[in-house]
Amino acid sequence: MPLGEFELISRYFNRRSSRGDVVLGVGDDAALLQVPPGKLLVAATDTLVEGRHFLSGTAPEAIGHQALAVNLSDMAAMGAEPAWALMSLSTPVADERWLEGFAEGLYSLAERYDVALVGGDTVRGPLVVTIEVLGFVEPGLALRRDGACPGDALYVSGWPGEAAAGLEILKSAQSSSAADASLSEPQRGLVHRFLHPEPRVALGRALRGRATSAMDVSDGLLGDLAKLCAASQCGARVDLDRLPVSPALLAAAGQQRAESLLLQGGDDYELLFTLPPDRADELESVLGDTCPVHRLGTIEPDRGLRGARHGVEEKLPGAGFDHFA
Amino acid sequence: MPLGEFELISRYFNRRSSRGDVVLGVGDDAALLQVPPGKLLVAATDTLVEGRHFLSGTAPEAIGHQALAVNLSDMAAMGAEPAWALMSLSTPVADERWLEGFAEGLYSLAERYDVALVGGDTVRGPLVVTIEVLGFVEPGLALRRDGACPGDALYVSGWPGEAAAGLEILKSAQSSSAADASLSEPQRGLVHRFLHPEPRVALGRALRGRATSAMDVSDGLLGDLAKLCAASQCGARVDLDRLPVSPALLAAAGQQRAESLLLQGGDDYELLFTLPPDRADELESVLGDTCPVHRLGTIEPDRGLRGARHGVEEKLPGAGFDHFA
Repeated sequence: MPLGEFELISRYFNRRSSRGDVVLGVGDDAALLQVPPGKLLVAATDTLVEGRHFLSGTAPEAIGHQALAVNLSDMAAMGAEPAWALMSLSTPVADERWLEGFAEGLYSLAERYDVALVGGDTVRGPLVVTIEVLGFVEPGLALRRDGACPGDALYVSGWPGEAAAGLEILKSAQSSSAADASLSEPQRGLVHRFLHPEPRVALGRALRGRATSAMDVSDGLLGDLAKLCAASQCGARVDLDRLPVSPALLAAAGQQRAESLLLQGGDDYELLFTLPPDRADELESVLGDTCPVHRLGTIEPDRGLRGARHGVEEKLPGAGFDHFA
Repeated sequence: MPLGEFELISRYFNRRSSRGDVVLGVGDDAALLQVPPGKLLVAATDTLVEGRHFLSGTAPEAIGHQALAVNLSDMAAMGAEPAWALMSLSTPVADERWLEGFAEGLYSLAERYDVALVGGDTVRGPLVVTIEVLGFVEPGLALRRDGACPGDALYVSGWPGEAAAGLEILKSAQSSSAADASLSEPQRGLVHRFLHPEPRVALGRALRGRATSAMDVSDGLLGDLAKLCAASQCGARVDLDRLPVSPALLAAAGQQRAESLLLQGGDDYELLFTLPPDRADELESVLGDTCPVHRLGTIEPDRGLRGARHGVEEKLPGAGFDHFA
């Protein structure tokens, strides 16, 4: 007997959470939630479409992880503490093994960040997953895109470009129908970075009261930097000799391609942020080894992005990903 | 030149709202919102898929209306005051006329209920719209599904079945490629009820502190009543001689088919609720002419749904709509 919509929800998407602020969760017309007094509510939503954000045939566990991770990344970019999620799942069939894997990917990430799934909608249709995440932040401490100032140091977390390289490896493995086992260890690491982005929630929290601006890098570093600069009414110089090209990325793509993936590839879900230069040491000591951050350049008063390598001006490649371009 | 994703958002989905509780709206990684002290946050999400929830070729204005209305209906069903919405739009092309119509339908309903669109996501993909609505309710006054008690009077608002009849008329007009103008006035009224459901927000607010349970009727009255009874661990008797068959529905479908559309048709977005019998007069006088409500039957201790016509037991037709059944 096929699985009905209501049984599907109660079987896969109704795990209890230990959060005491969920007055009413999955199962009614809406969830009832208690926002801590004195905090602002932070709300974001992101959608994944099969064939656009993930390849057809991607493991359901990775889709579940990714769908929540990209939303938690928005919380991170605001310096917010994530708390609750709602999920809308459109799927062509109610395949139990697929649902089990998807729920596993979703809940294992949710549990790590103490996020309760409190509601949603399940419909039959093309494979599209939309998650909405809700969280809190102290008034005045939220990280916004519009606070960067000339002179600020420009930073990015982690190793951007690795996810885009992982996607390329996945695509070529798929087209050559090579088995996963034929990938080298560093290649598998890059694929993992694409399939299992880790939201930088702890970094976002550490940036509160320190960073002048922040956003997450999802559509490519340069394109996202251009948005941050536009919101802040300033420009930036990117030091191309300081780009954090990871050894795995370098090995997979070579220096030139690695730089272009780093600057233009999507799906990194790292944080791009700006700090007054005198706060850089403080942040690096607060973070210790918990999260690598790399200085990329400097915010400048003149609009637009400029590249420099060892002090010599160099043209930057074109902009980031646009769904409708 | 095709319209880019970011231009699309700023052109169509960035209207200012007058709400003072939106600290930061569309344009950053997340919205920052101020929940009034002492209120619970109410959160719901609903998705519309082309070909499932609306016919291909439906006017974009109606899709925009419907996508928000079904979510406001969830707020109504909780007795909540809607405040903010996030919208995820997956669409195959960024057609400007379509987007203009869609935004018009969405915003004209949003403005009527003072709901601010504070964020969202726009991606290329099959036509799927997900909206999340956030609102508030006083602790202890939220309407839930699980509070119905034996002896309570069972009510439904408005004229259920009209939307389902409207959908049938639309479908047959589409298949006969008859012009819209060939529809009679009452038929056009039924089609309007399907395309432009009116969320019962004021009724939901009036039910706070009065109704013992409530939910919205979206998947068919009997199927939804079964869910309400299951949540409340009780059953119900439906008085088939009291069904509120509207004149338009009767004219379009005849008595027998009208009853079946009323009991099993979907897309009504009316409220189903229960009242202690001694509060029924009070509610009717509070509501006055603002919203028609109809007594349908009585909550009973024995599980399951039973029908009766003029006191004589009568079998009820089967259950409501299930996306995966």
